[in-house]
Amino acid sequence: MARAPTRSGRPRKASETRAARERLLDAAHALMCERQTIDVPVQEIAARADLNVALINYYFDGKDGLLLALAMRHQADYAAALDRLLRAPLNAAAMLEAHIRGLVRAFRRTPYLQRLQHKILRDSSEEEAKVCGAALVAPLAAFYVALAANGVRDGSLLPVAPINLYASVVGAADFLFSGTASLRHGFGVDAVNDDLGAAYEDHLVRLVLGGLSTP
Amino acid sequence: MARAPTRSGRPRKASETRAARERLLDAAHALMCERQTIDVPVQEIAARADLNVALINYYFDGKDGLLLALAMRHQADYAAALDRLLRAPLNAAAMLEAHIRGLVRAFRRTPYLQRLQHKILRDSSEEEAKVCGAALVAPLAAFYVALAANGVRDGSLLPVAPINLYASVVGAADFLFSGTASLRHGFGVDAVNDDLGAAYEDHLVRLVLGGLSTP
Repeated sequence: MARAPTRSGRPRKASETRAARERLLDAAHALMCERQTIDVPVQEIAARADLNVALINYYFDGKDGLLLALAMRHQADYAAALDRLLRAPLNAAAMLEAHIRGLVRAFRRTPYLQRLQHKILRDSSEEEAKVCGAALVAPLAAFYVALAANGVRDGSLLPVAPINLYASVVGAADFLFSGTASLRHGFGVDAVNDDLGAAYEDHLVRLVLGGLSTP
Repeated sequence: MARAPTRSGRPRKASETRAARERLLDAAHALMCERQTIDVPVQEIAARADLNVALINYYFDGKDGLLLALAMRHQADYAAALDRLLRAPLNAAAMLEAHIRGLVRAFRRTPYLQRLQHKILRDSSEEEAKVCGAALVAPLAAFYVALAANGVRDGSLLPVAPINLYASVVGAADFLFSGTASLRHGFGVDAVNDDLGAAYEDHLVRLVLGGLSTP
């Protein structure tokens, strides 16, 4: 375990720096998952990590920087994974199915990710919004453009506008997690368990492939 | 036009009361649409309405009350409209198509509605959350339960779990509006115009009916 930081709030060693930085991100992640909101005060993030709140300024230059680091951490190998999927020996319809299942699972692990991304794109500095957009949105948009073109080329998908495919798939996959409060009030469901997660994957694949597969 | 309120912040007459209350709600609506966020300070809402900020406490007992009134106003006849649709002389598949088109249009008029609803369900007092859940979530959930049952009975839809149908249709319809920041970074689209709105309706109908219609 890392030693406590010095009274100035600065950690003593490189290994402690890394540990403290990661502990703050872990604490933010845990609180956002537990509370089903991204509105988590920095004091509580620091308290959960058992660290001085001043370290959030030290490592991340403030809360906006911490939010950006959290979004970037969760999708560090994101573009690479989409690229691997596009090079897999599958037709576009099978690729789309694999993508939908992966997306539902990714949002289950990080249910706040879409909301965090939108907050950064909307409220952060232009520079931070650009970093986030280039790292998280642009690769996914490019994936949908390539997938739609491949589907027409290999004959497995009907023509579809990439922006419509993107908004419907990402929106539907995200809502099961971002809309938890309405699931509780409408259906008495408090959280997405394994069965609901798996059934929702199957359901989305049925809608999207049912609507877009060639006959 | 209403006369200015007295110095105490209270308006003079019943007609002025109504006008001032509605002007505050109109101002909140306009700011949330323009800024694509529900995080709008009460000072700016009052300034836009050209009214004293104290009136927000007077009419709504604070910001939470204003947010609840705004959510309730936009769907005052919401349950009645769903009920009318269920009694229309249409089979369940045709009803589902009419509902999807209506939902995309409703979110286009009030792009912040889902986010506002979730904020109220999550952050407001238990009492306010119950009012919002009973007025806005429960009727929609009941509609999906009835629609799924009717679809099996009249043979126009394959069996589907209402919660999955709800999350996918509402999530996909909402994301075109709540995810505007990512549409800009991913596809260079700043706002949903008539053509995109109409194309998205057609796209969602194709996915949902393609996946759920009986052969």
